[in-house]
Amino acid sequence: MKLTILFAIVVLVIVSLTVPVFAADPLPSWNDGAAKQSIVNFVQRVITPGKDFVPVAERIATFDNDGTLWAEQPIYFQLAFALDRVKALAPQHPEWKDKEPFASLLKGDLKGALAGGEPAIFQIVMATHTGMTTEEFEQIVKEWTTTAKHPKIKRLYTEMVYQPMLELLAYLRANGFKTFIVSGGGIEFMRPWTEKAYGIPPEQVVGSSIKTKLELRDGKPVLVRLPEINFIDDKAGKPVGINEHIGRRPILAFGNSDGDLQMLQWTAAGSGMRFVGLVHHTDADREWAYDRTSHIGTLDKALDEAKAKGWTVVDMKKDWREIYPK
Amino acid sequence: MKLTILFAIVVLVIVSLTVPVFAADPLPSWNDGAAKQSIVNFVQRVITPGKDFVPVAERIATFDNDGTLWAEQPIYFQLAFALDRVKALAPQHPEWKDKEPFASLLKGDLKGALAGGEPAIFQIVMATHTGMTTEEFEQIVKEWTTTAKHPKIKRLYTEMVYQPMLELLAYLRANGFKTFIVSGGGIEFMRPWTEKAYGIPPEQVVGSSIKTKLELRDGKPVLVRLPEINFIDDKAGKPVGINEHIGRRPILAFGNSDGDLQMLQWTAAGSGMRFVGLVHHTDADREWAYDRTSHIGTLDKALDEAKAKGWTVVDMKKDWREIYPK
Repeated sequence: MKLTILFAIVVLVIVSLTVPVFAADPLPSWNDGAAKQSIVNFVQRVITPGKDFVPVAERIATFDNDGTLWAEQPIYFQLAFALDRVKALAPQHPEWKDKEPFASLLKGDLKGALAGGEPAIFQIVMATHTGMTTEEFEQIVKEWTTTAKHPKIKRLYTEMVYQPMLELLAYLRANGFKTFIVSGGGIEFMRPWTEKAYGIPPEQVVGSSIKTKLELRDGKPVLVRLPEINFIDDKAGKPVGINEHIGRRPILAFGNSDGDLQMLQWTAAGSGMRFVGLVHHTDADREWAYDRTSHIGTLDKALDEAKAKGWTVVDMKKDWREIYPK
Repeated sequence: MKLTILFAIVVLVIVSLTVPVFAADPLPSWNDGAAKQSIVNFVQRVITPGKDFVPVAERIATFDNDGTLWAEQPIYFQLAFALDRVKALAPQHPEWKDKEPFASLLKGDLKGALAGGEPAIFQIVMATHTGMTTEEFEQIVKEWTTTAKHPKIKRLYTEMVYQPMLELLAYLRANGFKTFIVSGGGIEFMRPWTEKAYGIPPEQVVGSSIKTKLELRDGKPVLVRLPEINFIDDKAGKPVGINEHIGRRPILAFGNSDGDLQMLQWTAAGSGMRFVGLVHHTDADREWAYDRTSHIGTLDKALDEAKAKGWTVVDMKKDWREIYPK
């Protein structure tokens, strides 16, 4: 009798070491509904041996960043960073007082500064993102992301990541997926904080970039950031960036705007099971509500295509129980 | 008494499930000597809690490919691929009969074809590597690597990888390292076979590239390979490529030529423990012997710097028990 009981203990010990505890809901911030169901169905089908099974090495998931993993209103957060840098650097640039777009900006007239359109933004970005070494830029970004706060929400920008998407990233990784960011934002603006914020390491971040150049400074090699565009990881550039950095087609992709459309089409065009998702900003109370006519995160053609193709459209207001981490 | 015995069994079962068996030599194809010792010492120091400890996420190791992970004589294997493609494509290009470097090449006069130097090689590469989609190119490379054989060794090129380096890659990964290729070779020429040959997935391959463009063909999005250089991942380009693709500085780097010098310097210049290694081709019997005056894999400045800085120089003849996998 004793033998039987102890044998049972041995079995229990072995079982407890090898079989995971039955999992709690991996997506607690998602309300039950079609969006959540479609995610869970997809993951279960590709990890279960059978016709839809996908080997671990091919479980590549790509996510846009602005408006998909963190907020993007009232202006892209990287632009907020650039504007803060203009103010910080102004004492070293007395000539900016008489030079647009800097002059308007320093007078607090953002609208006037941005009236120059893309060339004005280009000037602001180049003045604030280049000239230093990659390591110096990393420190500047780290300092900003740990101190600057959003004007409306009054939280650090890196705290304005979406709790449901954090759960989705973790759920995918727990099921053997490798999660990547594929963003129009600057690759070196994102890398200093994506690992902490999303669990996505620098080597899994794809973004827009400027050219860099190897130089010796004080006898040590450094990479200097040059005022020259290297790559724009947006629209038709996203499949190009995915191919260059990942070299495999994703089986899951998530975006929120027309800038993501080609990435979503590229993902959908692969063979086998595919998941294509869009975050639709529908929550004016807890976040922002915008789509077809918004200048930031315009969602028009991609919304039509999602409906036509049966892609998953996440209705932020209905589908998300929480927006930001508590 | 029975209780004690069974308790002992429970303990043994638990222990056997949690403690790894004392490891056999992880580098059996390396002869005992300074090179092997320096590798093992480095790995043990960075994985052991203490002042030299490096967190898993920062255990980045980068390897050159040609001459470091696989052979590169008598011509770079990618050039052998290009030459084979010229022959295969010749029927579709009757004009090549009167056009250099193709004319010489098709007559079997390699020396004459390459007499045109870099512009001739550029023409051969563009004629054979562009115009098709990325997926078509992948298939072409796969077919070549599974059929073409080296003229002297009479084995598939992908079987001319170095057994000691395969063991080193596996040893590093078993100790939490992420292993990357950083090669002057074409990124899309390597990716179709690096996972099988080295256990290195496509997203961990950095190399030279041409531009690609998203197009719709038969209603499906494809990436077309354009006859335009995107990036040359050699010399001062290697730290640039590492920064762009990995976004972290390696703590270990291995090369074999002056083309790797800047990658090695970039690695050495980081703070904390660093390992910098060179494969020195010293074995004319089992492989090839070449260094300072070789046109392929010139090893001159990097050899001097390795000696001056105390980097690990692997003497292929003395340090490697085996060259290729059996």
